[in-house]
Order: sequence, then C-alpha cells, then structure tokens
Amino acid sequence: MLKKEQNELVTRTNAGTPMGELFRRYWQPALLSQELPAPDCPPVRLKLLGERMVAIRDTQGRLGVMDEFCAHRGVSLWFGRNEENGLRCPYHGWKYDIHGNCTEVPSEPEGSRYCDKIKLKSYPLIERGGVIWIYMGPPELQPPPPEWEFATVPLSHSFTSKRLQECNWLQALEGGIDSSHVSFLHRGGLSNDPLFKGAKGNDYNMKDLKPQFEVVDTEGGLLIGARRKAEPGQLYWRITPWIMPSFTMIAPRGDHPVHGHFWVPIDDETCWAWSFDYHATRPLTEHERQAMQAGHGIHCQYEPGSYVPLANKRNDYLMDREKQRRGELYSGVEGIAIQDASLQESMGPIADRTREHLTGTDRGIVQARRRLMAAATALAEQGTPPPGTEPQVQKIRSAAIVLPEGQPFHEAAQDALRAAPNTPHASV
Amino acid sequence: MLKKEQNELVTRTNAGTPMGELFRRYWQPALLSQELPAPDCPPVRLKLLGERMVAIRDTQGRLGVMDEFCAHRGVSLWFGRNEENGLRCPYHGWKYDIHGNCTEVPSEPEGSRYCDKIKLKSYPLIERGGVIWIYMGPPELQPPPPEWEFATVPLSHSFTSKRLQECNWLQALEGGIDSSHVSFLHRGGLSNDPLFKGAKGNDYNMKDLKPQFEVVDTEGGLLIGARRKAEPGQLYWRITPWIMPSFTMIAPRGDHPVHGHFWVPIDDETCWAWSFDYHATRPLTEHERQAMQAGHGIHCQYEPGSYVPLANKRNDYLMDREKQRRGELYSGVEGIAIQDASLQESMGPIADRTREHLTGTDRGIVQARRRLMAAATALAEQGTPPPGTEPQVQKIRSAAIVLPEGQPFHEAAQDALRAAPNTPHASV
Amino acid sequence: MLKKEQNELVTRTNAGTPMGELFRRYWQPALLSQELPAPDCPPVRLKLLGERMVAIRDTQGRLGVMDEFCAHRGVSLWFGRNEENGLRCPYHGWKYDIHGNCTEVPSEPEGSRYCDKIKLKSYPLIERGGVIWIYMGPPELQPPPPEWEFATVPLSHSFTSKRLQECNWLQALEGGIDSSHVSFLHRGGLSNDPLFKGAKGNDYNMKDLKPQFEVVDTEGGLLIGARRKAEPGQLYWRITPWIMPSFTMIAPRGDHPVHGHFWVPIDDETCWAWSFDYHATRPLTEHERQAMQAGHGIHCQYEPGSYVPLANKRNDYLMDREKQRRGELYSGVEGIAIQDASLQESMGPIADRTREHLTGTDRGIVQARRRLMAAATALAEQGTPPPGTEPQVQKIRSAAIVLPEGQPFHEAAQDALRAAPNTPHASV
Repeated sequence: MLKKEQNELVTRTNAGTPMGELFRRYWQPALLSQELPAPDCPPVRLKLLGERMVAIRDTQGRLGVMDEFCAHRGVSLWFGRNEENGLRCPYHGWKYDIHGNCTEVPSEPEGSRYCDKIKLKSYPLIERGGVIWIYMGPPELQPPPPEWEFATVPLSHSFTSKRLQECNWLQALEGGIDSSHVSFLHRGGLSNDPLFKGAKGNDYNMKDLKPQFEVVDTEGGLLIGARRKAEPGQLYWRITPWIMPSFTMIAPRGDHPVHGHFWVPIDDETCWAWSFDYHATRPLTEHERQAMQAGHGIHCQYEPGSYVPLANKRNDYLMDREKQRRGELYSGVEGIAIQDASLQESMGPIADRTREHLTGTDRGIVQARRRLMAAATALAEQGTPPPGTEPQVQKIRSAAIVLPEGQPFHEAAQDALRAAPNTPHASV
Repeated sequence: MLKKEQNELVTRTNAGTPMGELFRRYWQPALLSQELPAPDCPPVRLKLLGERMVAIRDTQGRLGVMDEFCAHRGVSLWFGRNEENGLRCPYHGWKYDIHGNCTEVPSEPEGSRYCDKIKLKSYPLIERGGVIWIYMGPPELQPPPPEWEFATVPLSHSFTSKRLQECNWLQALEGGIDSSHVSFLHRGGLSNDPLFKGAKGNDYNMKDLKPQFEVVDTEGGLLIGARRKAEPGQLYWRITPWIMPSFTMIAPRGDHPVHGHFWVPIDDETCWAWSFDYHATRPLTEHERQAMQAGHGIHCQYEPGSYVPLANKRNDYLMDREKQRRGELYSGVEGIAIQDASLQESMGPIADRTREHLTGTDRGIVQARRRLMAAATALAEQGTPPPGTEPQVQKIRSAAIVLPEGQPFHEAAQDALRAAPNTPHASV
Repeated sequence: MLKKEQNELVTRTNAGTPMGELFRRYWQPALLSQELPAPDCPPVRLKLLGERMVAIRDTQGRLGVMDEFCAHRGVSLWFGRNEENGLRCPYHGWKYDIHGNCTEVPSEPEGSRYCDKIKLKSYPLIERGGVIWIYMGPPELQPPPPEWEFATVPLSHSFTSKRLQECNWLQALEGGIDSSHVSFLHRGGLSNDPLFKGAKGNDYNMKDLKPQFEVVDTEGGLLIGARRKAEPGQLYWRITPWIMPSFTMIAPRGDHPVHGHFWVPIDDETCWAWSFDYHATRPLTEHERQAMQAGHGIHCQYEPGSYVPLANKRNDYLMDREKQRRGELYSGVEGIAIQDASLQESMGPIADRTREHLTGTDRGIVQARRRLMAAATALAEQGTPPPGTEPQVQKIRSAAIVLPEGQPFHEAAQDALRAAPNTPHASV
C-alpha cells in the first residue's frame, strides 16, 4: 500500500516530475522500424512522457524527431511534407531538418538569417533490433545505445510488437513482474497457446498454486524468483529480471522463444505496451512468426490501421462468458496480452494504491516501487545518476530452471541469467 | 425556484451528502431479477448513489453485492468467475462470498488466516416482485422489506422494466409527480397507446387543460390531486401518491394496468428510471404483456444488449418533425417514456432550479422538494429517522375517481388510496 | 507573440468578456435562410458567443430567436411546436412569440396575467442576402442593417455556405487574412479548382514565393496588401480588407466570383466558418453554382444532415499521403476550406500565441490582433463605441490589381476597393 503522495510520485512522468526525469535518462522504445519504413515516408505522430512530437526518416534515411508543432504559428507538422532532407510545414513552407533546425523560411528575403534562430526541440533516435529508440534526457548525459539481447540478435531471431494500453504505465509493469497470476489468469494459455503450450514447466506452474517469491536487488533493478514444487527435493524456479524503469523478461518455456516487455508512458493515463519475442540461438520458425502476427503469445490483434487492440475497454474485451464458464478461458477474455490489459485497465486510469492489500506474492512489486521511488527522489534531490543505464546491465536474461532445494536461486542461476551470444536460454 | 445551495442539497446523492444519506435509509430497486437469472450466472456491474459494485447469485441461489474492485490490487471483479458459492477474482484467484468476505487467497500457505482480515463493502439484497432490492444504509437501521403492492402481487399480475436516464434523478421524479403535462406531451398516447387508450377518463384529461392541483402531506410523502371538470357537479380526480424519496404511481385508466416509477440515482448526472405495471386483481393479458415488452405504455425499446433506450440524446430521440407537424406526436418523439426522458434530459445533467418559474400546477413539485430537503437536513443535523420507511406507508395506491364537487379528495378517496388484496383499483 | 493574458483577452467571447461584448455590437451571420425555409417550419438550435438559443420563422413568416430553454422548468424549446405565430413548449404548452414573450400558459385560469411577466431573452434578427443576421448587443445601440456587398446583390449573384470549425474563431480569422499561405497550402487549388484556376494572377502567385506585405489601418479594420513581382516595373497586388471583428474578403481571380468569410464564435473552442461567393455584375453560372454545392472553391462537403465537414479531425481530414507525395495536394488534404480547417484545428482548441514566431508576412495578423485588443479594451474600460459598425464601412471590396512600382497600393487602388453597384471587381 502506498500513500497518496507516493502514488503520485511513482506514476506521473511529464517533464519536470521526478519519475519523468528518471525515465528521460534511459533509451526508450519509441517506434517500430516499420512505422518509418523508407526515406521520405510519411511523418509519424509520437507522444511520449506527455510530449507531442513528430518523427521522420529523411531523404538520406536518417531518423529525426521534433516538437509536433511548427515554430511559426503552431500547426501540426504531421500534415507536413517529408522531402529533400527535411520536414516542410504545409502552411507556409517552413522547413526543418532531423534535428529540428529550421533550414528554410520561404517568405524571407534572399540572404536572410532569420531561420538560424528557429529550432524545434528534438531528441536523438537510434535504430536497433527493428525498434527506433529515443533518448529524451539532457544531451550531455546520453547513455550508450541499448544492448538488450532481443535487440542485438539477428532480425530473423526476433519479433516485436506494440499496443496501446489505456492505463498508467506502472500498473502494467506491475503485471509484468507478477509471476503468480499466470496460474489463474493465463492458465488457458499454458495449455492452448501455440507459443506457450507443451513445456514441461507448465505442469509445475499449474500444479503448485502457491509459489514462493524471493526478490534480489541487482545493480539495475531486481531478480524476482518464483519457486514452485518440482520433483522431490527439487524446485522449479521462474526468474524474472526487471531493469529500471520498465524492462522485464518472462521466463522461457521449453524451446519456445523468450518474451519480454517495456511499458512506456504516453501520458499519465495511457502507455505503450511493447512486447518482444526472440530466440538467442536460432531464427524464429515460420509457424512461430505467423502465430505472433496473428496475435498469439503476448501479442494481439488490432483495430484496422492502428495499434489499438481489437478487444478493448469499449467492447468489454469481447469477453465470452460461455468460454469462461466452461473453463476454456479463465476470465472469458482471449489472449494473454488482452487478459492482462483488461484487468490492468479495469483498475482505472491510475490505480489507487492507497486501498490495496498486498501479500507475499507481491514482493517483487513492492520492491520495484521502492527502487523506483528511491531512484527518482535521489535524482531529483541530489542529482544521483539513475542505476541501470549501462549496457552491461542490459545483458540479462530470464530463466526457468530446476534447482535442488536449499540453493540461493540468483547464485545457482548466475550463468543462466547472463545474455551470452549463441548460448541457449535456460528453459524448462 | 431554489437557491443554488438548495439545488445542490436536493440533487446530490453520493455517500456523505445529506440527500445521499437519506436515500441510503430506504430499500431501492437495484436490478431486475432476470439480470441475475440463475445460480452461478455471470456477475453484473451495478452503480448506485455513486458507488460501483458487482452483484452475483451464488451456487445456492443466494444474492450478494460487493465493492466492484478486488481488495488485493483493485481489478474489477466483473471479470471474475462466479463459482462454488463465491466470486473469484480472475487475476490471482482471491474469492469472496455474497457478503464480500474473502474466503480464499490461493497463494497463501495452508493454514494462513490472512483472508480473515479481508472484506469488501457489501449490502443486503432482497428479491421481491421480480426486482432485486438493495439497502445501502447503516446495518442496524435496516427497515423491513418493501411492501409496495406491485411487488407483492403474483408475478403474473405485473411487469417491470428499467431504462437509463441521462440526467439527475430529481428532474425525472418531478416529471413523475406532474400530472399536468399529460394533456400536452402525452396527448397522443391517450388516444393511441394500447396501454392507455379507450378509458373514459382520457376524455376528461383532454377536454380540461386547466387542471387544479391540491397537495396533501402524508406520513411518507404526498398525495397530489389533479382535478378536472367531469359531468356537471362532478370532478374527475387523478391522484398521484409520492413516497420518499422517489416512489410514484400514476392514476389508473379504465381496466388498464396501473403504472408507477422509481428514479434511483446512478450518480449525480444519470439515474435508473424504473417502470412497473400491475393489476391488483387479475393477471396481465398476453396482449398487455406483449405491448409492454414492445416498449408501449411507460416502457421503451433498447439498444441491443443494454438498458439504454434506442431513442436517446445522441440521435435526438428519433424525433419525427412530420409526425409532430401533423399532430400525431405532440413533441415528435415516440412513446411516453421517451417523451419524458427527452425533455427531462434536455434540461441538462442537473437542472438549474435557480432560473425556473413555477405555477399552480407545480404545487406537488414544490412540496416534494420541501419535504426532501427537510428530511435530508433533519437526518444530517439531528439524526431524525426519515419518514416513509415503514411497510404500511407503502401499501398505497393511485386512483382515478369522479367525486361530487366540494369533497376533499383525500378523504373521499381514502379507501381507494389504500392497497387491499383482491380489491380492484379505483379507475375511470 | 502574445502574452498569456493577451491571448485570453482576444480569444474569449462569452457574455461579459471584453471581446464578447465587442462582438455583440455587430450584426453577425446566424443562420442560412434555408435553415428556416418556410413559415411554421421546425425550430433550429443556435449557439453563438456561448449562448444557447432557438430560432423560428413563425406563421406570418417573421423570424425570431430566444433562449433555448423554457422559462417554466427549463426544457429545450427545440422540441417545441412552431405553430400559430409562436413556439409552444412541448412539456406544458407554454407559448412564446418571436420576441420571447410568453403569450400563453394553458394551465392558468381564464383572465390570468401570469404570462405577462414571463419573457425569454431574445435578439433581433434580419434576413438579407440569403443569410439571417443577429444582433446580440444592447438594444439601444443596434446598428443599421448590414450592407456587405455580397448580401445586397441579387440572390442569383451569390452563394453562401457555413461549416463547423472545431477551434477558436481567431486562429481561423488569422488564416483568412494571411495571403502568404496560398502559395504553399493551396497551390494545388490555383491550378485545379474550377473556381480558382486559369486566372493570370495565379501565375504571379506561384512564381513569387516571397510576397511583401503592407498593412494600412482603415476606419473599420485593415487593408492588407500583398505584393508580388509581375512584369518588369509592375507589381501584382492582392488586397484583403478586414473589417472588425471577423469579416474578410479574398482578392478576386480573373472572372471568377469573389470570395469572403466571417468567423463567428459558437463558444471559445468552436466557430462557424461562413463562406460566400458573389459576382457584383452578373449571376453565377450554373457551372459555378454546382461547383460550390459540390464543395469546390472555399466550400466543402458535409456529413449527412449537418454542417460538419465530411473531412474532419476525427478522420484526419481524409488525408491522402499518396496525393501529397505526388505533389497533387500539397498537404494531402482535399479542398481549400478543409486545407485551412485541418491546419487551424491542428493548432489546438485555442492556439497558444505565447510560443509563436511571427515574420514579415504576419504583419496583417499582428495588426488585426492589436486593433481587436484596443477596441475591446476601449469598449470595456471607457465605453468607446467599436469601429466599423456603420454600413459605409461595409461597402468595401477586395481587389487583385497590377500597379506600377512605387505607388502606395491603398491610394492607387482606392476605387477598386469600394463596392459600387454594377461595377466589376478589379481582378487579375
């Protein structure tokens, strides 16, 4: 349970807020590469951390992002023409390069230097692993490019999607680091979903509904271990790493690809749920890729031409009471992603954490909030650099592993938790 | 005309407001029985007096209602599974009985008493006359079950519906106790509607457009008598009882069933319009029941799968100017219920009573407001128990009756105004 | 760039605001004549300057407008019956004449004078040029009827439309007096639109993208001259008059009709964009009229049964990126009216003028704001009568004219800028 002011602190991310400034110190996924597919393609609107921007890929293929609104009279540059290495405002033809520098004001006389003074706010972008990343913090403190394993394996080995989630980012993250709800909300998925079913670990998941949670602090975040009974004398561990502020990975199952998420605030009441799948040692099969595109696993189907899930709060997530009754779908909602979204959105735009009752299975959630609040406060008050911006912290994996009783999981699984090229995931 | 602060006092019903606390002392209709048709049927969302709840009928058929949100992390229990005598949260499987007591937290170790401390707010429900009633006040002050005649006759004798009305409850109630608008707004209904037409009284209604109103205070509310000219030396009285806070009955017509309403606040800007028809001495005919189901009389048609009227503010109530011009429909809107709803909603979410100009025909409205404000203030300031919670007050009827000139209507019609089993209504 | 309080001053027009009181001193276009086509036709809802009204044409064909809500209990008179020289409330039959006087309260006894005290707020209307005009200011200060040339030529010579614009009126007006954006946003129109193309002046427009602006104060507003290079020693002048608060005319092209606009606040975040075309000396051709009805020129297509443009913010103005890419449509949006609307609406409900960067081409905008603020402030503080309410100020024209270099445009074009019956426009 949080106090009201703590809940405000940890959920609000506009510019100038402590959590907002913390978020701005990390590279965040901003767009899928395919949203800016080619030089001079249409500009794309982008809202992150409460800031409205427009992104382009210019004639030379360079990426750029800037304030959505023209410096002149404030019209949206989304209506602009992306042409000849710049974005031209459709109102009076003012033109901006990828850094937001105004390069032309057509009405100005020859030789005028007027446009030298005009610059839109702009942020660096980088493209890696099929994702366009943004850094919105102070330029002099820009960290090295992101080194998450999913973004560094060949593109053939990974699949990444995003969907709109209509609630604050934190309650979405909290779902991601809460391994215990799988046995309830997602139980259908473990036996039916083509990207989950058939793993030996699933049996442990379904048989032991009383997982024990252990949480270990790491430099960049947490390792959250959930242990369930396996064979006599053995424990089945599902280990979820969380790296600040919102990266998580789901423990693998059998030979399935590994999954993970980012939750990136659009504003305080909506966020992007980023979902990735990858295999460290092999390409995804055609069957796997098709299943992901069809919305299986942690992905979803969309309203046409959008990243809004087809099943959403306006249609009660297409809940099917008959399938719920028969036990085919535990909550009546189809698909792991939408099962999560439906419940997280049902908490309200910003969950009220002053009324909750947490238990032992929420230890990861409690500790993640504590770390976030500590880092945001330290940054705001002492300027302490946030943890986890270094690439080595990002070379991390989730793991599903069977260990003898009595072993500390983070020591016993130490190797399994490090990303190492061409080394298979520890998966059960 | 009210002062601004009076208008606030008499319209606001959230917890802690004087009118809200007054409302909470009475049994209110909450759901139609058919909304919870069978043991273990799907849970139903319910919002009343600003409080969000979820209602179930459990495996044994017992009714229960509780806070909509799970005590654990706050997800909506509407997504829950109603099974084995309780509602189970789909997120982590926490389970609640019909009283909101947590009966199981699956992740807890054997023998844990954790869930003994967890209880959701819950209210008593009772089922009577095809309606599920709720009492949201202090448990120790719970009044006896409701004894309205429509709810105590055999189910074959009655028909009850509800519809969403998109305005404050009070302006809806005020329409219900205002007998004078019938001669204008509903004049088409008196000659066309299968549940109204053909009664002798209708002629009196249409011929005398200047009804005189007399209002008599009763223990639980008011008797509002509207008299019109009948044969020489005779007066046609239509007597509308109002019982606090929002029960009214419409005077009967010929052998038609009698009608009545409750208006129950959902929140300050929407309410449920409950509408019932019944006959004290005979079953409704198949023809009558079909007419009600088809939306005639005081009932309406709905948007599919909802209690939102098909004709509503978003489609200008399907107003037909041509039928209005021809005089076929006085306001161009079809159906008595929607005629009322359209005008009452057009007053705005909460009518501004500081600008109105009342006349003699509004005497019932003026006195009802006065009684409501007095009762709410007395309860808030002196703890005075509200009037009209006793069953005997509820054994009341409306009446349409011809009386000789000069007789006080409430004395002359005394018998006609008492509900008496197997006694026909006084109807003209 | 404005200060925050200046932006508030110049954009807010509800009753009691300085700009609102300024607006109320002028006749404003309120409705198209065709919206009230015949005696006893249906009443029409009308919201202007934040005030909600209902307008009628009574049995004798007289126009009237009054407060939308009945004085009795506040229901919307839009549901009323327009019959026998008055609008009758559908609730209890109260009746109002075109001046808002209550003429009947049916429930009152014979001889009652009750309704003599009941009067709804009402404003004078006048019909001229296919437009119904309203004056919402103090009755004793009512100016003479409007004498704009478009409204005084025969109806065969003119065509007027209106459309909803979903932003504050001022950013719409600013677009109207900004001749420089034509070379960018509307460049397709100059070569394709049947109501614009083929004029010699279009070539000057497209060849010189660096127009020079000169702004001259007049009694009622401004003359904004934009000069571009023509033949050697010659300048092509497009002269836009602006008369307070929101009348503008677009300079003519060849033999095409002349265009003009009013922007009239509905409330602070929406306005009516009025658009007229006329020829001073000849009827519009059938071809021209059909083009206007089809939404060409400065007109548009609508959502069925409304004045909401078919292409609007909810569908991204049906933007066609492919046509934009090919250069067929500069901003990808079809139609001059919607090109303007799309960008002006993209600035937000009320443009933030504290962040803009104005240049030489914005001189007209700067001076118009200055004049508006001065007039509103002088009226509010000293009661100074606003400029430009007199008919002679309204006898003005726009002009497109080629002048020798060195001539002051407003002197050289003096005759061309005066409306004179049966005299052709100065048009190039």
